[in-house]
Amino acid sequence: MNRKMVFNFLGQIVKIEALMLLLPLAVAIFYREWMGVLSFAVTVLLALSVGFALTAFFKPESKLIYAKEGFVIVALSWILLSGIGALPFVISGDIPNYVDAFFETVSGFTTTGASILTNVEAMSRGMLFWRSFTHWVGGMGVLVFVMALVPSICDRSIHVMKAEMPGPIVGKLVPKVKQTAKILYLIYIFMTLVQVLLLLCGGMNLFESLVHAFGTAGTGGFGVKSDSIGGYSPYLQWVITVFMLLFGVNFNLYYLLLVRRFKSAFRSAELWCYLGIVAVSTGIIAVNIFPMYGGFSETLRNAAFQVSSVITTTGFSTVNFDLWPELSKAVLLLLMFIGACAGSTGGGLKISRVMMLFKMIGRELRKMLHPRAVEAVRFEGKKLDDQTLQSTSNYFAIYVVAFMAVFLLISFEPFSFETNFSAAAACYNNIGPGFGAVGPMGSFSGYSPFSKIVLSVAMLLGRLEIYPLIFTFSLSTWSKKQN
Amino acid sequence: MNRKMVFNFLGQIVKIEALMLLLPLAVAIFYREWMGVLSFAVTVLLALSVGFALTAFFKPESKLIYAKEGFVIVALSWILLSGIGALPFVISGDIPNYVDAFFETVSGFTTTGASILTNVEAMSRGMLFWRSFTHWVGGMGVLVFVMALVPSICDRSIHVMKAEMPGPIVGKLVPKVKQTAKILYLIYIFMTLVQVLLLLCGGMNLFESLVHAFGTAGTGGFGVKSDSIGGYSPYLQWVITVFMLLFGVNFNLYYLLLVRRFKSAFRSAELWCYLGIVAVSTGIIAVNIFPMYGGFSETLRNAAFQVSSVITTTGFSTVNFDLWPELSKAVLLLLMFIGACAGSTGGGLKISRVMMLFKMIGRELRKMLHPRAVEAVRFEGKKLDDQTLQSTSNYFAIYVVAFMAVFLLISFEPFSFETNFSAAAACYNNIGPGFGAVGPMGSFSGYSPFSKIVLSVAMLLGRLEIYPLIFTFSLSTWSKKQN
Repeated sequence: MNRKMVFNFLGQIVKIEALMLLLPLAVAIFYREWMGVLSFAVTVLLALSVGFALTAFFKPESKLIYAKEGFVIVALSWILLSGIGALPFVISGDIPNYVDAFFETVSGFTTTGASILTNVEAMSRGMLFWRSFTHWVGGMGVLVFVMALVPSICDRSIHVMKAEMPGPIVGKLVPKVKQTAKILYLIYIFMTLVQVLLLLCGGMNLFESLVHAFGTAGTGGFGVKSDSIGGYSPYLQWVITVFMLLFGVNFNLYYLLLVRRFKSAFRSAELWCYLGIVAVSTGIIAVNIFPMYGGFSETLRNAAFQVSSVITTTGFSTVNFDLWPELSKAVLLLLMFIGACAGSTGGGLKISRVMMLFKMIGRELRKMLHPRAVEAVRFEGKKLDDQTLQSTSNYFAIYVVAFMAVFLLISFEPFSFETNFSAAAACYNNIGPGFGAVGPMGSFSGYSPFSKIVLSVAMLLGRLEIYPLIFTFSLSTWSKKQN
Repeated sequence: MNRKMVFNFLGQIVKIEALMLLLPLAVAIFYREWMGVLSFAVTVLLALSVGFALTAFFKPESKLIYAKEGFVIVALSWILLSGIGALPFVISGDIPNYVDAFFETVSGFTTTGASILTNVEAMSRGMLFWRSFTHWVGGMGVLVFVMALVPSICDRSIHVMKAEMPGPIVGKLVPKVKQTAKILYLIYIFMTLVQVLLLLCGGMNLFESLVHAFGTAGTGGFGVKSDSIGGYSPYLQWVITVFMLLFGVNFNLYYLLLVRRFKSAFRSAELWCYLGIVAVSTGIIAVNIFPMYGGFSETLRNAAFQVSSVITTTGFSTVNFDLWPELSKAVLLLLMFIGACAGSTGGGLKISRVMMLFKMIGRELRKMLHPRAVEAVRFEGKKLDDQTLQSTSNYFAIYVVAFMAVFLLISFEPFSFETNFSAAAACYNNIGPGFGAVGPMGSFSGYSPFSKIVLSVAMLLGRLEIYPLIFTFSLSTWSKKQN
């Protein structure tokens, strides 16, 4: 393995994080939160020294990387970013315990939105801003961000992109990775700005508009109120609903719209399946919860908001859906695992994977009756090769296995089955709140440090789609032999 | 489709059921339970008339069947057997409600052991015997039983065997299906008798020895006491533990022992994996529950018993494991899904499928680093072809999807998440008791008739491994066109 390149890359990443930290520093200065200013300043200095140390110490002879390096760079970057990003919380005393702060920061970058805070209103503005800004950066990808900014860090950077972008098939929009990364980020910035504007129009102040737009864009879910979005006007709730859904769509489609290939964009099977699932789930839940709310419009708004929040794995809430009837909760639990579209900022299994699995099941059924018939599985108009199909099946298997492992490891806790199971599901699929003690009105503060670390790993597993972490922590990756 | 053959076969099956019913009839006569005698007699007459009507009315021109007929015959047989087998309970008034009786009978034949009875001690002996006897017949397979008895019912009966026998690869022990069926049943009868003898030696009376041996052999779990096996001596509990484990082993291995191919038998990777999982789970649980029990031997016995009961999907219990700490319950929940060895009487995913999935995951990981490397997946010394691998992956996907559907459908009930989830898992994997309201000391009586039907279907889905039911209830199977 090209270790020098890996650590050099990490150095670059940490320098970029120092830059990112200037934003919340500015916010802290603006609000005259001097403790926050100090914490961010110290962390910036620290990040810069670590970054320069790494790039100075590791000077790669070759910039060439392969799949393995891509996985390792991504996994280590995300861990390092969270490790450093947690420092301001600890230094300022807003989250005195480092494990808690690490959990919160991983939750931010992985766009999970699970929190150990019991009183979010007590946090300073700078910290709240940083917490939500990690969502925004993590959503589209930290390394994609770096690649868009820094002139060619490494050769074959597609390996880094592949390791960081979710979904079964990762393609480049344009031949150059750097250009692809730029286009994706430009669309992302544009959509975020539109949402900020619409929130401002609804009377939300600039700070909260930014924070909530970050949370929506990254499909994260950190807010600034204990009741999440529940206290805002119906108009604001609808804006967030629509934008959660928009950020759950495959960004390739927005690129197609941008280059005026409207037909191709609207012919996407994944898009329609996604919207179909949202519509059906909203319908079922609306009927189920109708007796709990005042009227048709309130019921529909709550159902649509929660469904959009969970399927896009955002995790905002307008009501305490933990109090909903079992059926609605079961539907939400299912949506947690399905997740949003591939190539979006959302987590979960991804709609396209679920569709492929169903298509394979269909083919299997036909094959059992006509064993000799040869039939191709088609998706989005293309024939899928056996390799892709087998990889999708294998991903599903490893996805379930990893989930069970997480669930088992946090079962040391004295919480109920519902709490533990949904906590594992909510972290692993990057949603945020679950049911029971970790419901929308609860928090993860009751878990032991061990479980918080397990759940942090679960969030990373979910966001990075498992493989990068496995490779990074397998000994064979680091053995000299395979250098 | 060869419909006449399908219905003719069904007729034969119902006649055999009439024969089977003579056994509990004899028991009822022995214990002078005249209401029971009447119920069984009426049911026998009814079964005979239905059977003869079907065979007289449907005279097939050709005895040839294909995969589709195999699936349909198996699915319809199991439904019909349960439908008729439920009648004695209703007629005698022991279970007055037909849906309840149907649930109980499906639970019997599918070797689930989930019960709607709240006071099992109040049942008459004849009914208890019939209930447990369905376990015994269902364990090895009703149609395998019929094929072993009746001279060649149809050509290519391997299709029926394949549809009924669980596991990813169904082979014949000897070239002839009929012979294979006979050998399997002889081993099965022999092992059951040995267990009966050992139970008698421990001071259990003949009636209870038979009933518990039936429940163990079929990996069913119906007993005659409200506290299941809890009231029996440690010796008896250990006998049942060992026999549950023995009946969870692939029967092909016993055949290998029989023909003195000891080496082949003990080289089975599935066997060692199975025993390994049992040992590790027992160890974890024993440490976890140690503070709850008196000493080492009691702790070990309870841990080993419950682990064996759940992994073999039997469902007997010696203690109320619903009161165990969350970690132990999580381990048991995991075992519910893993299940026993392929080709045993147990349910669940089956050890060999789980092993294949892990092997595929391993290959996938290596493939990601070396995309051009071609590597075969080997299992039990044989190279698995891509077709088998893809089928295993697809089965896993459809298995998860069907489970989620069952869970969703019973979520209309006001029970807790834990109860509903474990009820679905316990029925679908043919275990019996779950956690919460359906725990070892609870029952399924609280569920609505709708949910009882859903759970009955779940038990059939689990026992017949999904496909037969899908084909039977898909319209295209019955369309004239594809005749």
